[in-house]
Amino acid sequence: MRPFLDEAKDLLARLVALPTVSAEGRALEEGAEAVAEVLEGLGLRAEVVLGYGAPVVLAEGGEGERRLLFYNHYDVQPPDPLELWESDPFALTERGGAWYGRGTYDDKGELLARVMALRLFREAHGFLPRVAFVVEGEEEVGSPHLGGFVADFAERLRSEATLWESGGVDAQDRPTAYAGLKGILAVELRARTAAYDLHSSYGAVVENPLYRLARALASLRDEEGRVLIPGFYDRVRPLTLAEREAIDEIPDESEELRQAFGVPGFLGGVRGAEFYEKLLAEPCVNINGVHGGYGGPGSKTVLPAFAFAKLDFRLVPDQDPEEVLGLLWRHLEAQGFHDLEVVPLEAGERPARSDLTHPFFGLVRRALEEAHGKKPVLYPNMAGSGPMHPFLHHLKAPAVGIGVGYPGSRVHSPNEHIRVADFQRGTLAILRLLELFFLGR
Amino acid sequence: MRPFLDEAKDLLARLVALPTVSAEGRALEEGAEAVAEVLEGLGLRAEVVLGYGAPVVLAEGGEGERRLLFYNHYDVQPPDPLELWESDPFALTERGGAWYGRGTYDDKGELLARVMALRLFREAHGFLPRVAFVVEGEEEVGSPHLGGFVADFAERLRSEATLWESGGVDAQDRPTAYAGLKGILAVELRARTAAYDLHSSYGAVVENPLYRLARALASLRDEEGRVLIPGFYDRVRPLTLAEREAIDEIPDESEELRQAFGVPGFLGGVRGAEFYEKLLAEPCVNINGVHGGYGGPGSKTVLPAFAFAKLDFRLVPDQDPEEVLGLLWRHLEAQGFHDLEVVPLEAGERPARSDLTHPFFGLVRRALEEAHGKKPVLYPNMAGSGPMHPFLHHLKAPAVGIGVGYPGSRVHSPNEHIRVADFQRGTLAILRLLELFFLGR
Repeated sequence: MRPFLDEAKDLLARLVALPTVSAEGRALEEGAEAVAEVLEGLGLRAEVVLGYGAPVVLAEGGEGERRLLFYNHYDVQPPDPLELWESDPFALTERGGAWYGRGTYDDKGELLARVMALRLFREAHGFLPRVAFVVEGEEEVGSPHLGGFVADFAERLRSEATLWESGGVDAQDRPTAYAGLKGILAVELRARTAAYDLHSSYGAVVENPLYRLARALASLRDEEGRVLIPGFYDRVRPLTLAEREAIDEIPDESEELRQAFGVPGFLGGVRGAEFYEKLLAEPCVNINGVHGGYGGPGSKTVLPAFAFAKLDFRLVPDQDPEEVLGLLWRHLEAQGFHDLEVVPLEAGERPARSDLTHPFFGLVRRALEEAHGKKPVLYPNMAGSGPMHPFLHHLKAPAVGIGVGYPGSRVHSPNEHIRVADFQRGTLAILRLLELFFLGR
Repeated sequence: MRPFLDEAKDLLARLVALPTVSAEGRALEEGAEAVAEVLEGLGLRAEVVLGYGAPVVLAEGGEGERRLLFYNHYDVQPPDPLELWESDPFALTERGGAWYGRGTYDDKGELLARVMALRLFREAHGFLPRVAFVVEGEEEVGSPHLGGFVADFAERLRSEATLWESGGVDAQDRPTAYAGLKGILAVELRARTAAYDLHSSYGAVVENPLYRLARALASLRDEEGRVLIPGFYDRVRPLTLAEREAIDEIPDESEELRQAFGVPGFLGGVRGAEFYEKLLAEPCVNINGVHGGYGGPGSKTVLPAFAFAKLDFRLVPDQDPEEVLGLLWRHLEAQGFHDLEVVPLEAGERPARSDLTHPFFGLVRRALEEAHGKKPVLYPNMAGSGPMHPFLHHLKAPAVGIGVGYPGSRVHSPNEHIRVADFQRGTLAILRLLELFFLGR
């Protein structure tokens, strides 16, 4: 395996060296060009598509009737806080059997595992199977233009299944796969109650923006986390039998998570399968931040004039972020919060969940079990969000995330890394999936 | 008047230049020394008393049987938000006939008006009347040690009346005086729900500290501002006939205030005498600030682990801050907020209201009317708070606040200032009060 690993490391080092931070618009063209070169090196025809925000790399090629699509992204999260990195985030560094650097996992390492699996396939079987790649550069900023790209290129992307980014093994080294993602709607509530800050003695007669926000936030959910916005659950599709079975089969690590998070319990007291159902299958509202008035040491007798709250709603099929925004607005109106401004912060992402009964998932389970030597865990969807919906919607084919990470990969954090052994096993799993899919063995 | 104003401005500039922010413990010794020098320059014996928190300046001197006591403070509120100041908060700046800077009104300008009135008295009558000054450095953080100081020094402070800090003219340039202050209790509510911040996708199962705070804050009052803590109103003393008459005589500027503040209306829709009764005679709870989680541009999918809220309660006779703290604690317990930490930020101040039928108020009314040429307005108490209670309690003499501000002085806000004309008239009113009190004419 030595030449394989050397080559993978060299290619990954080349991609990690490019600081493709989409939030800062850094090195995105270079990132797209480098990815296109890597994919052309594999024998695919790659093109850099402009006009959809950051350049999108679209690559196609290989032989056969059936086709697999790979979704990845070349952009990364900002590296800060820089001082917490033990090595340069933009220089791939190997230590302790792991590769460190921003993007080693999310998502350059994932992309390289697919590239290497295709090389291994060609070496073993003498041809490149028919595949396509979509590698975007705006995933870390909510993929605002990807939906349009997929709609416009749907015919060229048509495939029998999509291999989604991200995945790997869980804390017990069991391989994981997931078939969907929650949707998201991020909004800001703004309360302005006066023209300027007043002395807090006027609090007897002048409204307080933090009280308005407090009442509004308290009105959004109950103590168990159930959202109180009328109509919020109307479009929630009940779990199918296969989805419920998949959730019931998830090994229960809720107690380990509870201890790691340092919480006395979870909302509604859930544990075991109930925990996973609430986490994965229930939509929720979350407060990302509230700020207004004095926040320094001690006290300040001020009546602030302005305050804001940032929220995200996590959505499940078939909720729609645009519709939820409307429901939120109507709820606040009905509760008398005419004074609050509701500002959507991003276009939002629709929830996505593939059909778990699709035969492709049988291949995925088998490939993972053979490569890792352990029974895989299939999540109907992750608790997080991503731009999977346009793929499911336009391509009418399932998507599944499998990959090369582990729970300690520090995704989005300093010292992001993958373990080399995970990279090897993850690459092998993709190779096995390619063989099962294209060769039937 | 030119030399008088030049001298006042020079002295005030010297005090304003010292950033005596008690909340941050800044420049307090220098502040006390500077005030002691100014009072010694007047011909008083000044001493800086240690052992009661920030140094207290005690000055005594002058001739005669009767004695007046002046209460002021040399500390100021923090200047932030700094970016809203049009000139350096710690550099006295004159523009548009006004003196700008932190403390130009509250309370360095007030102190200087008294110093200048005593100078004018001595120039006019050839002697300094018998007075004492107590100038503390912890007023803006709730005067936690002043009660002890007044108790210990009660004999040396003994006077027939106390001239309290703050006051001036209302929006119609009518001189104002007030005979009391609300009490205050400042507390912080702290919510910690996990060991560290989590990805917001866990919001479906992990409690959010900002939600806990929102519910707690929403439980404290109703939409009209009435406090919902059981027992909160039990000790509220009904207004006396004189107090109610004084409130009814307050010229109705509620509509002008409403416009100046830029608010659609006041809590409970009050106006006129109802507005003043709610503002002055009703206790309330006010949120000074709430902070937790992300506050930068756009969105961040974080589930914060910690958040806090700062509150103040404004109290009226005979409420007691210590008792209200206990009621708050019991209320939160009863509402299920065992997870919130309730931290009193200061010792609190008890409410105070002088006996409006005391003859000293006749002299005050006359001095104000002569200096300003308008009928004064006497408030039974202000909406704000201050450490007046120990003076009333230990000295058994009335206290009255008259001064040099106006409603646009932006006390505690960016661009705090006084109008030079108000400073002149306010100084003249104090001079007339000194003459009426000490000379009987």
